[in-house]
Amino acid sequence: MNEFDFINQYLKSQSPSPEVILGIGDDAAIVRPNHQFDWCFSSDMLLENRHFFANVEPAALAHKVLAVNLSDMAAMGATPKWALLSVALPKLDSAWLDAFCKSLFAMADEYHLQIIGGDTTKGPMTFNVTIVGQVPRGQALKRAAAKIGDDVWVSGEIGLAAAALNHHWQNVQLSEQDLLICEKKRTRPTPRVKLGERLLDFAHAAQDVSDGLWQDLEHIAEESGVGMDIDFDAIPTLASLKNHDGAAKWILTGGDDYELIFTAPVQNRECILQIAKEVGTPVSLIGSVTAQAQSGVKVYRNHEMMNLDSKGFDHFYE
Amino acid sequence: MNEFDFINQYLKSQSPSPEVILGIGDDAAIVRPNHQFDWCFSSDMLLENRHFFANVEPAALAHKVLAVNLSDMAAMGATPKWALLSVALPKLDSAWLDAFCKSLFAMADEYHLQIIGGDTTKGPMTFNVTIVGQVPRGQALKRAAAKIGDDVWVSGEIGLAAAALNHHWQNVQLSEQDLLICEKKRTRPTPRVKLGERLLDFAHAAQDVSDGLWQDLEHIAEESGVGMDIDFDAIPTLASLKNHDGAAKWILTGGDDYELIFTAPVQNRECILQIAKEVGTPVSLIGSVTAQAQSGVKVYRNHEMMNLDSKGFDHFYE
Repeated sequence: MNEFDFINQYLKSQSPSPEVILGIGDDAAIVRPNHQFDWCFSSDMLLENRHFFANVEPAALAHKVLAVNLSDMAAMGATPKWALLSVALPKLDSAWLDAFCKSLFAMADEYHLQIIGGDTTKGPMTFNVTIVGQVPRGQALKRAAAKIGDDVWVSGEIGLAAAALNHHWQNVQLSEQDLLICEKKRTRPTPRVKLGERLLDFAHAAQDVSDGLWQDLEHIAEESGVGMDIDFDAIPTLASLKNHDGAAKWILTGGDDYELIFTAPVQNRECILQIAKEVGTPVSLIGSVTAQAQSGVKVYRNHEMMNLDSKGFDHFYE
Repeated sequence: MNEFDFINQYLKSQSPSPEVILGIGDDAAIVRPNHQFDWCFSSDMLLENRHFFANVEPAALAHKVLAVNLSDMAAMGATPKWALLSVALPKLDSAWLDAFCKSLFAMADEYHLQIIGGDTTKGPMTFNVTIVGQVPRGQALKRAAAKIGDDVWVSGEIGLAAAALNHHWQNVQLSEQDLLICEKKRTRPTPRVKLGERLLDFAHAAQDVSDGLWQDLEHIAEESGVGMDIDFDAIPTLASLKNHDGAAKWILTGGDDYELIFTAPVQNRECILQIAKEVGTPVSLIGSVTAQAQSGVKVYRNHEMMNLDSKGFDHFYE
């Protein structure tokens, strides 16, 4: 199999959406954007042994490659539309590609995402997805939009992916049942696209939790010029994780959660709980936005301010 | 320096274009489309020791990373607008980044390209650019648009990058002067953006020469359901290269040329030569489009049909 076989056999299998004038196979894809919308663009690169283990199942890998990008669209309240996928692989193995592409297109179809282009090359396993989504004009959920007095919310459960990773690194021994739950969260995160779309009229600022809850909350606080008070005990996690010494660190700094954090006016509480119910994604109220911009995001546990060495993941931290 | 310093210090330096509602720094960039245009999307991934030598000068690398993507826009006749840059680097070295980013933004500014997003991570040097360009509705130059009887044209000179590469591989010893010219072409290709834009009203099909002239011509022929007769001696190259044994191979299959090949009606010859003069990019007439779809692209030298083992580069060819 050569790269053109790969493209023709595997990548050209989706049925085109009406705005796509030309899909995979030319120098570029051609799209006619609906100008009633704003368009959101995001890219994520995933490397072997950094973002995933080299021996990861191809189906789980394909899921994650799209999920982390879909999660960025969710964080803008955008509806995912198109993606470009660049792939470096050491070889073109049919069985591996079958499993990878089957999972990739199942995920793409589930979110009505069309793969319109990309690149294939030989090398250590590397993936880059650029995703494009649409959002009604002027309504995207920006990090800079938090207002003093807003509630701070988070979706799903936090810290599970980090717990699974620490189990793999043998820093902790999770129970069989916890491992199963945490491992699923780590390898098959659910991007909160529906929740993000529905929050457009009700939330102010949003972002997804990828680098660590604390650090990601600080991004919102900094960009918005506000502070936050967060109640550690209100942060949703797997109850049994809290028995482990490392739990606070996994929850506050672990990252890789792909949950949404967002701020919203207090009067929208009931609406937000109703939306969460309708889209089937639990949300938890974990704090509030304050005027204390200088002190950033403060996290309290039993009325004591918490302190950790690092607030989240930095790829270049030594 | 951490990844956020890198983003703030280096990547946020461009002044925004009016359609960009939100640039680097959120979960996604936001762009508001102009309804008179279609959008073209393309991605290219470049890996260390495959697409560039690990010790390449950062300025030359930045040039090439953007040039190969700008070339894809040129091949569509599109005007480059926005790009997302994903970067993996083993470390964040200020001197290296200064040189890389200075060259990157000089190139971006020259082509009025705005970097609106991307990703940074730690790893073996890897780059992925997704580029977005605009083209008047329905006018993009597709590979599938060649018509029987069209002239076949190519811009610039072909085979120089391959000659330089073969010199590095010690397959050939180029003269000092030839090496200088060929090496510049290999490391600092000029994307033919202005030529592409101006060809919109005059050419039918187009693509850029990245995988090898012969193979890339065959892409046009296949997609258009036509054949081509090409005159080898009409293919523009550096005259002194022809004295080397490998020259035919470099010219027909070397690739990495980033010149445009395009087909156009015979009656547009004068216009095309005039356009080439105006944009300062020479073009050469190298053949014609035939009805012989089955026989593909035939290349003649002294009225004899040429034959080569391989017609171009395939990343997975063993």
